[in-house]
Amino acid sequence: MDLASHPAVRRLITAALEEDVGHGDVTTRAALAPDLRATASVVAQAPCVVAGVSLAPLVYGELDPDLVVECLVSEGAAVCTGQAVVRVAGSAAAILAGERVILNLLQHLSGIATLTRRFVDAVAGSGAAIVDTRKTTPGLRLLEKHAVRAGGGVNHRLRLDDGVLIKNTHVALGGGTAAAVRRVRAAAPAGMSIQVECRSASEVEEALAAGADALLLDNQSVEEARALVRLVAGRAVVEISGGVTLANVAAYAATGAERISIGALTHSAPAVPLHLQIEPLA
Amino acid sequence: MDLASHPAVRRLITAALEEDVGHGDVTTRAALAPDLRATASVVAQAPCVVAGVSLAPLVYGELDPDLVVECLVSEGAAVCTGQAVVRVAGSAAAILAGERVILNLLQHLSGIATLTRRFVDAVAGSGAAIVDTRKTTPGLRLLEKHAVRAGGGVNHRLRLDDGVLIKNTHVALGGGTAAAVRRVRAAAPAGMSIQVECRSASEVEEALAAGADALLLDNQSVEEARALVRLVAGRAVVEISGGVTLANVAAYAATGAERISIGALTHSAPAVPLHLQIEPLA
Amino acid sequence: MDLASHPAVRRLITAALEEDVGHGDVTTRAALAPDLRATASVVAQAPCVVAGVSLAPLVYGELDPDLVVECLVSEGAAVCTGQAVVRVAGSAAAILAGERVILNLLQHLSGIATLTRRFVDAVAGSGAAIVDTRKTTPGLRLLEKHAVRAGGGVNHRLRLDDGVLIKNTHVALGGGTAAAVRRVRAAAPAGMSIQVECRSASEVEEALAAGADALLLDNQSVEEARALVRLVAGRAVVEISGGVTLANVAAYAATGAERISIGALTHSAPAVPLHLQIEPLA
Amino acid sequence: MDLASHPAVRRLITAALEEDVGHGDVTTRAALAPDLRATASVVAQAPCVVAGVSLAPLVYGELDPDLVVECLVSEGAAVCTGQAVVRVAGSAAAILAGERVILNLLQHLSGIATLTRRFVDAVAGSGAAIVDTRKTTPGLRLLEKHAVRAGGGVNHRLRLDDGVLIKNTHVALGGGTAAAVRRVRAAAPAGMSIQVECRSASEVEEALAAGADALLLDNQSVEEARALVRLVAGRAVVEISGGVTLANVAAYAATGAERISIGALTHSAPAVPLHLQIEPLA
Amino acid sequence: MDLASHPAVRRLITAALEEDVGHGDVTTRAALAPDLRATASVVAQAPCVVAGVSLAPLVYGELDPDLVVECLVSEGAAVCTGQAVVRVAGSAAAILAGERVILNLLQHLSGIATLTRRFVDAVAGSGAAIVDTRKTTPGLRLLEKHAVRAGGGVNHRLRLDDGVLIKNTHVALGGGTAAAVRRVRAAAPAGMSIQVECRSASEVEEALAAGADALLLDNQSVEEARALVRLVAGRAVVEISGGVTLANVAAYAATGAERISIGALTHSAPAVPLHLQIEPLA
Amino acid sequence: MDLASHPAVRRLITAALEEDVGHGDVTTRAALAPDLRATASVVAQAPCVVAGVSLAPLVYGELDPDLVVECLVSEGAAVCTGQAVVRVAGSAAAILAGERVILNLLQHLSGIATLTRRFVDAVAGSGAAIVDTRKTTPGLRLLEKHAVRAGGGVNHRLRLDDGVLIKNTHVALGGGTAAAVRRVRAAAPAGMSIQVECRSASEVEEALAAGADALLLDNQSVEEARALVRLVAGRAVVEISGGVTLANVAAYAATGAERISIGALTHSAPAVPLHLQIEPLA
Repeated sequence: MDLASHPAVRRLITAALEEDVGHGDVTTRAALAPDLRATASVVAQAPCVVAGVSLAPLVYGELDPDLVVECLVSEGAAVCTGQAVVRVAGSAAAILAGERVILNLLQHLSGIATLTRRFVDAVAGSGAAIVDTRKTTPGLRLLEKHAVRAGGGVNHRLRLDDGVLIKNTHVALGGGTAAAVRRVRAAAPAGMSIQVECRSASEVEEALAAGADALLLDNQSVEEARALVRLVAGRAVVEISGGVTLANVAAYAATGAERISIGALTHSAPAVPLHLQIEPLA
Repeated sequence: MDLASHPAVRRLITAALEEDVGHGDVTTRAALAPDLRATASVVAQAPCVVAGVSLAPLVYGELDPDLVVECLVSEGAAVCTGQAVVRVAGSAAAILAGERVILNLLQHLSGIATLTRRFVDAVAGSGAAIVDTRKTTPGLRLLEKHAVRAGGGVNHRLRLDDGVLIKNTHVALGGGTAAAVRRVRAAAPAGMSIQVECRSASEVEEALAAGADALLLDNQSVEEARALVRLVAGRAVVEISGGVTLANVAAYAATGAERISIGALTHSAPAVPLHLQIEPLA
Repeated sequence: MDLASHPAVRRLITAALEEDVGHGDVTTRAALAPDLRATASVVAQAPCVVAGVSLAPLVYGELDPDLVVECLVSEGAAVCTGQAVVRVAGSAAAILAGERVILNLLQHLSGIATLTRRFVDAVAGSGAAIVDTRKTTPGLRLLEKHAVRAGGGVNHRLRLDDGVLIKNTHVALGGGTAAAVRRVRAAAPAGMSIQVECRSASEVEEALAAGADALLLDNQSVEEARALVRLVAGRAVVEISGGVTLANVAAYAATGAERISIGALTHSAPAVPLHLQIEPLA
Repeated sequence: MDLASHPAVRRLITAALEEDVGHGDVTTRAALAPDLRATASVVAQAPCVVAGVSLAPLVYGELDPDLVVECLVSEGAAVCTGQAVVRVAGSAAAILAGERVILNLLQHLSGIATLTRRFVDAVAGSGAAIVDTRKTTPGLRLLEKHAVRAGGGVNHRLRLDDGVLIKNTHVALGGGTAAAVRRVRAAAPAGMSIQVECRSASEVEEALAAGADALLLDNQSVEEARALVRLVAGRAVVEISGGVTLANVAAYAATGAERISIGALTHSAPAVPLHLQIEPLA
Repeated sequence: MDLASHPAVRRLITAALEEDVGHGDVTTRAALAPDLRATASVVAQAPCVVAGVSLAPLVYGELDPDLVVECLVSEGAAVCTGQAVVRVAGSAAAILAGERVILNLLQHLSGIATLTRRFVDAVAGSGAAIVDTRKTTPGLRLLEKHAVRAGGGVNHRLRLDDGVLIKNTHVALGGGTAAAVRRVRAAAPAGMSIQVECRSASEVEEALAAGADALLLDNQSVEEARALVRLVAGRAVVEISGGVTLANVAAYAATGAERISIGALTHSAPAVPLHLQIEPLA
Repeated sequence: MDLASHPAVRRLITAALEEDVGHGDVTTRAALAPDLRATASVVAQAPCVVAGVSLAPLVYGELDPDLVVECLVSEGAAVCTGQAVVRVAGSAAAILAGERVILNLLQHLSGIATLTRRFVDAVAGSGAAIVDTRKTTPGLRLLEKHAVRAGGGVNHRLRLDDGVLIKNTHVALGGGTAAAVRRVRAAAPAGMSIQVECRSASEVEEALAAGADALLLDNQSVEEARALVRLVAGRAVVEISGGVTLANVAAYAATGAERISIGALTHSAPAVPLHLQIEPLA
């Protein structure tokens, strides 16, 4: 099932169109001849990594099945200023009715892909993966996780049901690391790996002793992280999170950790500037 | 109808919980005693303006109607680092199941409110209103427009059906400003004001002659904007948009324009840091 | 987005088909050969103004994408007895399964368009617009407002969020006209015009003094209305409502009021008679 | 499951509130103090039969669960001018937000109940039942059928799946009455009675010979209907439809037919006038 | 409206795909070339009666509108081991994404059709109909009732609103059989037949005296049933239920009862084995 | 989030009530006094393991929030014939309206739990886990997976997005085991374990060499399975599937495989018999 066929994506597009269009585009309905035909392009106004472009046929198809839509680049393509990424032709009124929704979607998702790519490039050669988190915009997780992949990142667990992450909270409320890991091992779905959050050497040792498959080193300095990775010595997969920026991500990657997870990929990526260029069809 | 009673908001909360929880929180179900009770607070980790706090009872009520939820501050309150904004008590498992959704919501909406407040403060005393746009995250417009109001901003039109904005595109495709305004005046719902996008003195004069109620000066320098506002001389409401930043917004406000609209309020506000502090109930 | 592409319209059509068809048309399934093909027309049984005809492809497409549907007249067309407005060809069973829904829709919406047209014709030459209200059938507002436009009427505000109407109730509960207008002016979205309900000369003066953009003269006799319009003297747009009938609407229009709003357009228009003529395809 | 618990009714109420309220009631939000409390009544402005009153708690509960709602009369009660049918107390803003939806619902459904009651009264003593049809407003069938019952009418089949009605169309397309009845008898769900539309004595005889349980005499004059009822002589239940008005319904009832069905009950009943009286709570 | 056009069926298919696919098929996305094309068949692994095959185009169309789907047998066809019932060609990834949903649907519905056919065959020549009940899987009634028809069975009432069945419970709580029948006769929709559950000769006589159209003999031995059928002597339609198995159904049918209803048709039919054979397209 | 708070579960319950109740329970509405109050119990008619009992408050709450519902046993409890599992008190009409939905749900889910428990008991002491599959009833996966857990089973992956299972199909279409594992390892979400289907010693060795975390031995005899488990020798988790019955499951468990997965748990478990005993409240 590709992105545009996914029921949750279709519901989101429908909701987005409905919240933007309401009873209809008063301006366009009045100002344009109803049978005016046009061609238009979504054009990048700054260099960026594109995500969401494959949704364009879905958005325009909802508005008017007779629009002809062409995706000019693939998901994850790096484009330059002035480059067109989608072309659409047909009813001018329908093209304008969808302008804002298509731009809002692509600006948001491409913003995430672009930021992800910058982090991925910053750790190139280190072997570390750039990983997202569950810190996504409510209702858009599927799309934002897709944008991270388009940017070259790797998805962390998608939901609370497809991965185990024992946080300090669980340890504190659940009677210690060993007990928590043991209980989870017995009750989790077959074959699910168990990750434990650690903030010190003793917590790392306790988690490893309890049989953790992966560790999450949260809010450690680069030096602390390096020491803990050395301590783990391959006994579990190591992920670093907290306080990671474009300025320090390479240093974190150089610690030897396999994964670096960054909430800002999805919660604070600024939109990339895109606009619609439209002209009448002779 | 307050925010938490709105059907669209309830649908969004339900979707957000469902996409985060899936079949259930594997970790918490296994690691915690099922009858463990706790109390928790959502705490600001940086100074910010809070929005979305009134949604907390809705989120927690969906998860477990027996949770007791208290909003500690009002929508739009400025809080300092370490200040708690929501308190919740009851099943520890239910509190943890909702942790990410409540934080994602509040971090996103408070990010918008905080950025809006910074712009509002920057133009204080000028008489200019800080106004949002339709450049919102797909599916979240109602909430994001609310967050702008919480930050002290003013809403622009909500949808394509509740306001007329004749853009250059409409003028180009529709046969000139005068024709477009005349057609819209005849066809738009009774009493709706008409705004026309202008990029030069001649366009301003043409729009005023055509009877525009408001003008949108898009992508003008401060000097150009000042000249055009002087030209309008109160004959229409003037709104400035495009290229407005915290660094230059005061200068734009000093031109005398009534409104300054900023897409970044909703499409590029970074999340504000919030976290959940939880402890067991004796 | 044309009417038939609107998500809310599609949901309504789906609900209407589902509530009418249930598990399936027992009679047709049993009585007709399953591969029988037919052609059918929706035919007016009285002169009327047609609305909703553009929904026919949507209704039939939901039932059977292979049906070929043709709209024979435009929205708002005046048709005579015996005139066909929609033609459909394909599976006889599918045509019959949709018969009642398509007729119910067109009879209802054409009833509204027809009544609207009678009011519009009655005030022809006066310059007054015939305007609808929020007194619509629950769930059908978008379609009924469309039918009013098809009949030549003008839409009043669509919802509580796209227009301000300060009624006597607000004045009574809110501390007087001036205070209410002032508060609304400060808090309403940018550029929204403010209408105030008035029932006397003093209320008119108070509303004008408070800066109302438009007045609603509710439940006034023709004479009273005429006097109040004269009093306003162009200082605000004037709308008349309450007690308007086909018999007196011309007199109200002659008062010089710009708008006459009539709840009965949408809440009491009788259905116009339409029926389906079907015959087998050789 | 009472009316207000029915999922389809709850969906309709939600849609009706959403289409009326949009982002919120701009006027009330600005004009009234947010904590103002009030009490209000829905009051009849003409004598009518009430239907839909049991929905009031649902509508108000959606808006604000703290509103206290009291239904003052039962479904189907005949009320006089000035009589209150619903009382509500609580947040003034919430009461006003729901005003239009509650009035639209009750005016529409009470209109149907009132018209039904007039027909029922007109045939009192004849033994004939007043029956509705599938000619209902799209999306409102369940509520409109309820309103008919509240008015004293009897429901005809609810959908195409819960009753068999072999119309002239089926006979024409399906190879004659006898063949159609035989096929339907074999294929319909167990125990479903079969009704056949007849327009002449020969059609009546053919339907009876084929084993019809009930006949529908469509578009017959009173005289024709009387002759056909006599011909049937109790061999099947007889229903009359087409051209029935308040003026002639008693004559049709006197023919001895068991049922008289009237599409206008649901497609053309004018709304009854109701309004909301609200006053602040001390 | 055929099965695949029914809104409720489309909703179920969408939900089934969504619950199975989640964010996407991780394995296929990684393991297969994205442009790999294949052809596949759904093949019976045991002799069975097929139901649900007409849903295949709907399932695959949701996943990828470019898949070409062919139904190789009709609903209700008896197929042998190794026989293909559906063929599909196109994107290998899309075919695999739908594999489990299409198999789960067809295995479940064909299981019901196959069991129904065995009961139907067991009573062949007796004149008794095999009838289903309301004991269906929640959410799947429409499809399961369809599968019963595909197997040669007859549907009992579909819902609580399209048939009257007065059970012992109603008699006990409602003041006796005669009172219950009388009240139902007055209040039920026009033309609905009334069935009464009976467990003894005296109950049968009471029900007949009250005017029941049909009787339900529940949990009677073959001998008891035979005696009661003889007692009824054609005065009402007789249905037998409770304790009916493939071993005794012929004996029950030989009692002369018109209908034998069996809950196990829908609540306990084992799935029939089907699998998907796929190979790459050259 | 407990089961009854899950949005997908609430949607299913709503759909189940709606498909069963339709416009309302004609029989009960007519036969019972509207204010009759009763108490009722859901009672097991055979020994079984109960699942779904925690949904009873949800079902009854949808019908009538005033019903008082008590769950008498926990999820997964083994009950004996005649034991009550749910008690409900309140409106007799509401209790009867929900009877079929509550019984259908509990009979189906308890059937799954009961069959699962029999398999679990059959392998007691072997250390092997009884695991479910994706062979669930469309739309009911969440509930059926819950029922498996209630029976003592362990869930396999929930969806295609939360686990990797490389089947023969993927190997055949994807260019061999090693290539498939390598590609999946690179592309799958962080930390997801990889399972490979194997049917021979050579396939096992190839999968292990490629780095599989788990193996699925499909359709092997007990002897073959034993040999393959010995070959694996702890280098990966081993799961057996295909042809497992209550008669041979212990033998399969004795091979030393960690998991035995059985599709019949969810696709062919017969319903367990439950009924409702109701009596009037004095």
